Amino acid sequence: MTLLEREVYRENQADLLSRYRRVRHETELLADPLSPEDMQLQSMPDASPSKWHLAHTSWFFETFILRSSLPGYRVFDSDYHELFNSYYNSLGTPFSRPHRGMLSRPDLESVFAYRQAVDGAMDELLADHPVGDSLQSLITLGLNHEQQHQELLLTDIKHAFSISPLFPAYSETVQEPEDEDVLAPAAMTWLDVAGGNYAIGSEGDHFFFDNESPAHRQLLQDFQIASRLVTNREFLEFIEDGGYRDPRLWLSDGWALVKSGQREMPLYWQWRDGRWMQFTLGGLQPLIEDEPVCHLNFYEADAFATWAGKRLPTEFEWEVAACQLRQPDQLARANLLEKRQFRPLPAVSGQNQFLGDLWEWTSSAYLPYPGFRASADAVGEYNGKFMCNQKVLRGGSCVTPADHIRMTYRNFFYPHQAWQFTGIRLAGDPV
Amino acid sequence: MTLLEREVYRENQADLLSRYRRVRHETELLADPLSPEDMQLQSMPDASPSKWHLAHTSWFFETFILRSSLPGYRVFDSDYHELFNSYYNSLGTPFSRPHRGMLSRPDLESVFAYRQAVDGAMDELLADHPVGDSLQSLITLGLNHEQQHQELLLTDIKHAFSISPLFPAYSETVQEPEDEDVLAPAAMTWLDVAGGNYAIGSEGDHFFFDNESPAHRQLLQDFQIASRLVTNREFLEFIEDGGYRDPRLWLSDGWALVKSGQREMPLYWQWRDGRWMQFTLGGLQPLIEDEPVCHLNFYEADAFATWAGKRLPTEFEWEVAACQLRQPDQLARANLLEKRQFRPLPAVSGQNQFLGDLWEWTSSAYLPYPGFRASADAVGEYNGKFMCNQKVLRGGSCVTPADHIRMTYRNFFYPHQAWQFTGIRLAGDPV
Amino acid sequence: MTLLEREVYRENQADLLSRYRRVRHETELLADPLSPEDMQLQSMPDASPSKWHLAHTSWFFETFILRSSLPGYRVFDSDYHELFNSYYNSLGTPFSRPHRGMLSRPDLESVFAYRQAVDGAMDELLADHPVGDSLQSLITLGLNHEQQHQELLLTDIKHAFSISPLFPAYSETVQEPEDEDVLAPAAMTWLDVAGGNYAIGSEGDHFFFDNESPAHRQLLQDFQIASRLVTNREFLEFIEDGGYRDPRLWLSDGWALVKSGQREMPLYWQWRDGRWMQFTLGGLQPLIEDEPVCHLNFYEADAFATWAGKRLPTEFEWEVAACQLRQPDQLARANLLEKRQFRPLPAVSGQNQFLGDLWEWTSSAYLPYPGFRASADAVGEYNGKFMCNQKVLRGGSCVTPADHIRMTYRNFFYPHQAWQFTGIRLAGDPV
Amino acid sequence: MTLLEREVYRENQADLLSRYRRVRHETELLADPLSPEDMQLQSMPDASPSKWHLAHTSWFFETFILRSSLPGYRVFDSDYHELFNSYYNSLGTPFSRPHRGMLSRPDLESVFAYRQAVDGAMDELLADHPVGDSLQSLITLGLNHEQQHQELLLTDIKHAFSISPLFPAYSETVQEPEDEDVLAPAAMTWLDVAGGNYAIGSEGDHFFFDNESPAHRQLLQDFQIASRLVTNREFLEFIEDGGYRDPRLWLSDGWALVKSGQREMPLYWQWRDGRWMQFTLGGLQPLIEDEPVCHLNFYEADAFATWAGKRLPTEFEWEVAACQLRQPDQLARANLLEKRQFRPLPAVSGQNQFLGDLWEWTSSAYLPYPGFRASADAVGEYNGKFMCNQKVLRGGSCVTPADHIRMTYRNFFYPHQAWQFTGIRLAGDPV
Repeated sequence: MTLLEREVYRENQADLLSRYRRVRHETELLADPLSPEDMQLQSMPDASPSKWHLAHTSWFFETFILRSSLPGYRVFDSDYHELFNSYYNSLGTPFSRPHRGMLSRPDLESVFAYRQAVDGAMDELLADHPVGDSLQSLITLGLNHEQQHQELLLTDIKHAFSISPLFPAYSETVQEPEDEDVLAPAAMTWLDVAGGNYAIGSEGDHFFFDNESPAHRQLLQDFQIASRLVTNREFLEFIEDGGYRDPRLWLSDGWALVKSGQREMPLYWQWRDGRWMQFTLGGLQPLIEDEPVCHLNFYEADAFATWAGKRLPTEFEWEVAACQLRQPDQLARANLLEKRQFRPLPAVSGQNQFLGDLWEWTSSAYLPYPGFRASADAVGEYNGKFMCNQKVLRGGSCVTPADHIRMTYRNFFYPHQAWQFTGIRLAGDPV
Repeated sequence: MTLLEREVYRENQADLLSRYRRVRHETELLADPLSPEDMQLQSMPDASPSKWHLAHTSWFFETFILRSSLPGYRVFDSDYHELFNSYYNSLGTPFSRPHRGMLSRPDLESVFAYRQAVDGAMDELLADHPVGDSLQSLITLGLNHEQQHQELLLTDIKHAFSISPLFPAYSETVQEPEDEDVLAPAAMTWLDVAGGNYAIGSEGDHFFFDNESPAHRQLLQDFQIASRLVTNREFLEFIEDGGYRDPRLWLSDGWALVKSGQREMPLYWQWRDGRWMQFTLGGLQPLIEDEPVCHLNFYEADAFATWAGKRLPTEFEWEVAACQLRQPDQLARANLLEKRQFRPLPAVSGQNQFLGDLWEWTSSAYLPYPGFRASADAVGEYNGKFMCNQKVLRGGSCVTPADHIRMTYRNFFYPHQAWQFTGIRLAGDPV
Repeated sequence: MTLLEREVYRENQADLLSRYRRVRHETELLADPLSPEDMQLQSMPDASPSKWHLAHTSWFFETFILRSSLPGYRVFDSDYHELFNSYYNSLGTPFSRPHRGMLSRPDLESVFAYRQAVDGAMDELLADHPVGDSLQSLITLGLNHEQQHQELLLTDIKHAFSISPLFPAYSETVQEPEDEDVLAPAAMTWLDVAGGNYAIGSEGDHFFFDNESPAHRQLLQDFQIASRLVTNREFLEFIEDGGYRDPRLWLSDGWALVKSGQREMPLYWQWRDGRWMQFTLGGLQPLIEDEPVCHLNFYEADAFATWAGKRLPTEFEWEVAACQLRQPDQLARANLLEKRQFRPLPAVSGQNQFLGDLWEWTSSAYLPYPGFRASADAVGEYNGKFMCNQKVLRGGSCVTPADHIRMTYRNFFYPHQAWQFTGIRLAGDPV
Repeated sequence: MTLLEREVYRENQADLLSRYRRVRHETELLADPLSPEDMQLQSMPDASPSKWHLAHTSWFFETFILRSSLPGYRVFDSDYHELFNSYYNSLGTPFSRPHRGMLSRPDLESVFAYRQAVDGAMDELLADHPVGDSLQSLITLGLNHEQQHQELLLTDIKHAFSISPLFPAYSETVQEPEDEDVLAPAAMTWLDVAGGNYAIGSEGDHFFFDNESPAHRQLLQDFQIASRLVTNREFLEFIEDGGYRDPRLWLSDGWALVKSGQREMPLYWQWRDGRWMQFTLGGLQPLIEDEPVCHLNFYEADAFATWAGKRLPTEFEWEVAACQLRQPDQLARANLLEKRQFRPLPAVSGQNQFLGDLWEWTSSAYLPYPGFRASADAVGEYNGKFMCNQKVLRGGSCVTPADHIRMTYRNFFYPHQAWQFTGIRLAGDPV
């Protein structure tokens, strides 16, 4: 059963329209601190310009919904079909990814006009036409897709800004806490989870991505999992203990990266004038030791766990533990995008950080769940074709929207990548 | 429990010595058709010169056994410690892998002298000294290690020879079968396996690699699996149907490889003078359509399966099916190294090809089994540090020694690699 | 004698100020058609964003003149010192060249404010302070430097725009001529020049770059030189005759480039829908056969000459011939920047195209003239350190300012580069 | 007038045959210390295996002489035509240069058999057939070609051996001098040469390469040139003075190489256990300070000259000075191949080192002399197509045969290359 075939939560169309407006507006709020020049930046092939994110998310609604489902809809600009196609080969050859930053035309104004035109048409569709289940599914998918790009917009501009010697701040509100003591993190404790055949993945009438399905069972053994994320202080111990110089701690591919000189500290760290600094969305700031360590690649997370005599959890262990420890107000309290912190925060007592703060590397390879089949149409390219060479991350980060994340949510990146807000939760086998 | 801590099958020392002699002799037999110049060749960083294989396997016995366990043993040449260390960082910095082909010194004669010296010392050790369990384990590991290099010696020289316009033959016995009709392969049928909690991996008193343990259970769903490997004829249909031109069939990383122009047919295939040719260990020969298709990378195997409306099996499905279909004389009948065919053969009736012919790509990432821990000493680098970015292959090939392969054996290569004897077995979900 | 030690043409300060204003204003006129996003683009390390050109040229005046010579001058922004330093290592480590396009900050508005501040200060300097010879020299150097960047601004944006599938037009005035017949180029004839010891290079009281000096004599043999540039029509003959497939026509390094698939036609040419198109500063347009062929690298120019049974001239032959054929109104009639054609034009009768239209590849390596020494200060890095691996081009192009070019002017680029307006003039030995 | 059209010195055929035998025998003597494995090594695309040199030089005689000129000659092995073609595109596609080390077949024995067969046929040709002028020219060219490969055989094996941690010695006779005092080099003095129109290049009835012609005149200014090569001691002063850290001393492309970490000392130098070592053809040895500094690339030579307040000579200055200072017994006394020193030696009093010891980088780009035209046939590819991006070196080295070098001889390499025996002679302008 593919993403579009299944039953979805039937929403009142007015509610869907209101959600559409809210999500689309949020994207524009996030772009607000950026100049036209900022939004043009592409600092590496993995990242995209902010302007491109603004356009591509609109392209998604135009391409998958308006073209086929709004009677009389006229395409805004036929050139955009190629320019703002990300990777849907079924729809033609997408414009070269590493060159997205070369698209000065259309200019920002035109891209906002494009957004407006698409929003007007979506308004018309949702206000004036009865929208069936599969179309609702597609619109909901489009909104979740837009939320993914909200997060990418922030991680991509962070990377671009990090290259400038000016270290521009995206947001002045990302400040060093005045009184560190208040924020002293809770101690790391160990939670025991018993083995068994556990339910994994999503099913039913709420939204979830196809890669979270089919819901199925996984046989787990007894395991332990940590009560919070690893902190900068703890990671500094690893560094000072020679962690980056000891090959026995590293996976072979990770060690090759270290030896090639490409990694000797987390991304965005700098040793400057006798102290550790960290580039943040608030500019270059002193490292806060009680904050969770972030912008690690998978190899670093794994090496740290080995050094600590522990391991990373599998994605199934993570999901089972996170569900068992779920708290009623967890989502509301979690450090997610709506908090506008734009950085992970020290764990306060009673918080387990499963949701928000940082995406947590798991030891699991990103693979299809048993029985998974991508849908045969273009939307089928959404997730399935990436199920090779990547690792699963769980839990969302400080720049993930709260109504986007779930305990079953599977994010995925290559093991060498560190420009997302990524961190470490330790796990282990029972003693 | 690591490789060296566990109980192993206690062998009579005389039997072990006799096995030692047999395995070591086999390596030299395999090197016999090669000249000193041939044995110097290194055609890519993934491959090693034959001479290096001859030396490194001896280095293994010297380093892990003789140095510590044979009283009075004198190291053959202290320079060899660095030169013939493959990747054991715990033992010092190994000589640069991509430059192994630059070691004209020691010359071949010296390497054979090295083998002789090690063999003499091992003889002495096994004939004159009581050898405890853990030392027996290490010697057995060394023999299995040598068998792995026997296979690599053949795949590496095949790759090196493939670069020469002379297309040298390693063995004249690798001939085109005279009467193709005799070899018409059995039809592909589908075997149904019921789901359940299955035992996976090895335990007990016979030899197995640490990555096959701990033995544990995996929960599987019902599945189907094919009765034989995919043939060249079947793969040609994929090509002729535009398989290499249709992005919808490919994983994203595989399609990137195809688009970059690096793959448009299996490795070693050539279209020449109006017909398909294939470079084999017997030189350049016409493609035999009924033979299993080989030298595919994982992406090609996966794309073929998608095109066929099927999928690759997981390594657990493979193991369960292979064990269920095990036949009493299977190992003896399988096309393994001892048959000296040096190529896969068409499946004859009654043979399921689970063992021998070709390593079969599974959809499983190469990951540790639950509870796996590499041993803390240098031997711990053997398998564990490669458990990232690679795929599991199962079943052995036409160049795998018969007493080396097992149903639980886990081989692993990167998805882009194709110079091993690799092939496809299809699987699917129940209809 | 270095650039700054020599006597220069003493100008009335008021004239110098007026020239300063004119040159600076011209830069801004050229930037006028571009949006903030356009001016952010950097399409390759060789090219720079328009915004960077605007800032760097101001940096030059601030760094070399205002800082030291205007009493009380306050640096506009101390961060700019690193950001807009091109390659003057004596002044600190310049910001990474390939990342110039990552500088969204300062934004365009700030860069214009920078220009204004610098212009105000230069106004003050030239209006209110007596300016000595060496300072006049430096200001004149700064203006010539700015004119070089005017040309680069256009060639760099042309390259950036060429990457977009929209093929944006920089200027709508670059139009296909309506009546091609009018433009039929003059026939190519051959001019004979007698050998001898000829004066080469510049000296005296007008401006010239240090690399044009010392004036000296070169011994030349008799030679022939063509009366005009090679046309697209003539280059098409080369293509159709298999010019890009015949290794005998090419220098070894050029053939390596062709074989690697990187060149099979001039840069910016496309074969589209059955006809040749060419990307121009007016967008994608049909190729005009009578126009001079442009955007060739040196290897292409050389291969064409070989194919034609001729050769390229040396820079000395070029200079001698150009001076002998100099016409009174040549500069005024030449197709230079002020004509705002932004493309080369067919040669009309009586015009020899030595000045304007296209930079002409010579066979000469870019080397110091006998007795050349770069000045010891930072300005000494201007030209001298590039005197290796590059080729001399002569004569200016359709985007070179008229009061910037001279018969002795030596431009230089690497042989593989083609994004400047480069073309071919043939030469030969006497028959 | 191309190489083959001109008059050559008419030799008695018996003399030519005797010279043929001597040159061919010398190649084999030079290969004698090498094992079949050594002769297989190719350590970089610039270098070739010794075995390949042995075969290619024979291929030259077979291809250009025997095939067309010896009646009834039967090609030794038709496969060799492609395998041992270096870069003559007119004769078909040569086998991929970077893969020459992959040719284990033919084995060394076969290559020696090839040499023997070619030598037998050449004997027959020269003993039994009248050989005309142009054929004599070709044979002489073939012998000079072979001598070039004698030098390359030594520089290439030196590079290959340098990669092994064993630092094998090619020759045990390359020893550290026992008494350094004896070898204290002559002081560096400055020779003044007056300017004028000087004769350059070769003409007449002796052998020379086409790139040394046409003989012509060059107008030179007064200059100074040093009486000997720069020593290791002098180069160490440059290093200790921060020469590799000061961008002002370097050409831009050279500085880029230094910054990329690829150069911080001459090739083959090592700082080991508190002293400078140097890899030589006699293995790793302590650096001898009075020996000429060698294995520099052009950028290093140029930077040293700049640091010393001098410059490199042009190739014309070099030739004029070397001819003026020519001594009657210079060739016999020079440290050339026949001396079997395999390393440069300190200059003794009265010796100017213009011939032998080291190839001397000149500031001249490798360009055709006025009126040069490569011959139209395959031999025309010999020199002409390389006349771009390379620098001229003059004077021969300690591994150049004495009857191969001339004052007019033009060698050429890319500025970044240092594996030839290359060194520095300083020049300057008159004070």
